[in-house]
Amino acid sequence: MIKQLLAQQAQTPQKAFGEAFAPSNIALIKYWGKRQSLLNLPMTSSLSISLGAKGAKTRISAIDAVQNQVFLNGHIISVDDPFHQRLSHFLNLLKPDPKQFYHIDTELNLPVAAGLASSACGFAALVKAFADLYTWNLPEPILSILCRMGSGSACRSLWQGFVEWHRGEREDGLDSYAEPLPYTLPGLIIGLHLIQTGQKPISSREAMNITTQTSVLYETWPKQVEQDLAQIKNALEQQNFQRVGEVAEHNALAMHATMLAARPSICYFLPETLLAMQKIKNLRSEGLPIYFTEDAGPNLKILSLAPYRTEIQKHFPNLEWV
Amino acid sequence: MIKQLLAQQAQTPQKAFGEAFAPSNIALIKYWGKRQSLLNLPMTSSLSISLGAKGAKTRISAIDAVQNQVFLNGHIISVDDPFHQRLSHFLNLLKPDPKQFYHIDTELNLPVAAGLASSACGFAALVKAFADLYTWNLPEPILSILCRMGSGSACRSLWQGFVEWHRGEREDGLDSYAEPLPYTLPGLIIGLHLIQTGQKPISSREAMNITTQTSVLYETWPKQVEQDLAQIKNALEQQNFQRVGEVAEHNALAMHATMLAARPSICYFLPETLLAMQKIKNLRSEGLPIYFTEDAGPNLKILSLAPYRTEIQKHFPNLEWV
Repeated sequence: MIKQLLAQQAQTPQKAFGEAFAPSNIALIKYWGKRQSLLNLPMTSSLSISLGAKGAKTRISAIDAVQNQVFLNGHIISVDDPFHQRLSHFLNLLKPDPKQFYHIDTELNLPVAAGLASSACGFAALVKAFADLYTWNLPEPILSILCRMGSGSACRSLWQGFVEWHRGEREDGLDSYAEPLPYTLPGLIIGLHLIQTGQKPISSREAMNITTQTSVLYETWPKQVEQDLAQIKNALEQQNFQRVGEVAEHNALAMHATMLAARPSICYFLPETLLAMQKIKNLRSEGLPIYFTEDAGPNLKILSLAPYRTEIQKHFPNLEWV
Repeated sequence: MIKQLLAQQAQTPQKAFGEAFAPSNIALIKYWGKRQSLLNLPMTSSLSISLGAKGAKTRISAIDAVQNQVFLNGHIISVDDPFHQRLSHFLNLLKPDPKQFYHIDTELNLPVAAGLASSACGFAALVKAFADLYTWNLPEPILSILCRMGSGSACRSLWQGFVEWHRGEREDGLDSYAEPLPYTLPGLIIGLHLIQTGQKPISSREAMNITTQTSVLYETWPKQVEQDLAQIKNALEQQNFQRVGEVAEHNALAMHATMLAARPSICYFLPETLLAMQKIKNLRSEGLPIYFTEDAGPNLKILSLAPYRTEIQKHFPNLEWV
């Protein structure tokens, strides 16, 4: 179906270059586990908030060459690099002519590999830039599906604001795409508490696979997500920040719990992570509206409200607001 | 049934005092969650190793008084103390004459409230001392049931070695008792890595209740235990220390995972706990046979084999062998 739709679009570039920006996104209800890995079909739905101007800007042009040229933040990526290979593999799905290659230039304005979903915004920006180059005329759900095939959570990076990725039921994945939600949370601020930015001992992809394959506790994760999704949407509808924060924090901890119970056990918490969590809990008990979420890494994303920015900055002086 | 059995025993003390020792025990497959709290009926079976000479020695005598006199390590416990009340409440179940009161003297040779199951050996020693005072002639399963009614894991402290507490199915709890297992693990050594001995932010009893009532992930805990129990018994039969250690460590982490996913989330890990876990993992990857288990507290119990005692002591200089 996707191939047919792409075959109905222009088969040659319509411009000198295509260009697009896609925001990074942070999941408040996590995507954790695939039911099918080839198409990146998730075990559960998920819900994210996009990060405004933080994300990826990609420019793509067709080139007369025998392989793709990939640049990230001005640096060329070697063809042997797994990232280059993943990108080229993905472009094979999009490009009308197997012999066509591209020059791709991506600028990320957020720390790479700090757990800020750089692959999510990267793949989303690439799909949008590619659509721009060929002036595709495709429905948004189809673009979201294409993003998903590049990197699961990329399908949520096509929009700003709150976005839900529907799990879907179909084996071909045609009902597994994201869409923007009609909620706003005035005053919401998100701060990145960086604890470690180096290479993680285990990639999120691998952690996800080990967990789904070995964690008995993971079996209840779909039920957990169903419950948390219903609660957070209800809280968003009521613009109840505390409730949103509480559900998001709980969902993140439950995800880490599924990992802790994997075999071998996976623990992304560092001592500093625990200290920061405890500090957040203490500040909350003093009345400050502050919550956290944590992806597959030791860093925390802090959620709060604009009036408390200065106060929070006092307790987390190195916080990077995104 | 229990009441009838007790009614068939001597109704007055047969000695000036009854005396008994019961070892503390450490669960390798954890008891975590009750299906019925009045009788301390557990959600799952569990398996422990007793700590030899580490435990509780209790002496009990009938006194002419209007309330019990309770001494712990030479210090009198006030009648207002929850521990005194719990003990007196339990004695009401055992004593033939409601108007009879007792002088109870307990000596614990292990750190109180360091997560070394002092209530387990304490209640077991009390039941045995009481049985001695009245020269009861009761089958061991009945004694184990009585211990269980005092403090769940006390039912495992009647024996040395490996002990299994059978969950049972009956509502009256008559099939929920412990029994010794025919396994030995030559050379097994257990070290206590104390990280914090003060009051815990949340008692294990409370943590257990919050977890069973709020943790969606807890729903798979019975399945987890069933799997781990089968594996550890198999490993014990083969005297395969590595496998025993691996299963025990995994089971403990899965228990902590059910807590992490509770609402509110419960985390007994302190930064030092994570550091010690990481150290153990590193030592293991260097070939040292070393594993840990952790109860509802930040301290670790280290499992290893006698030939590696000195080497381990180098890395954990404050380790207390039990």
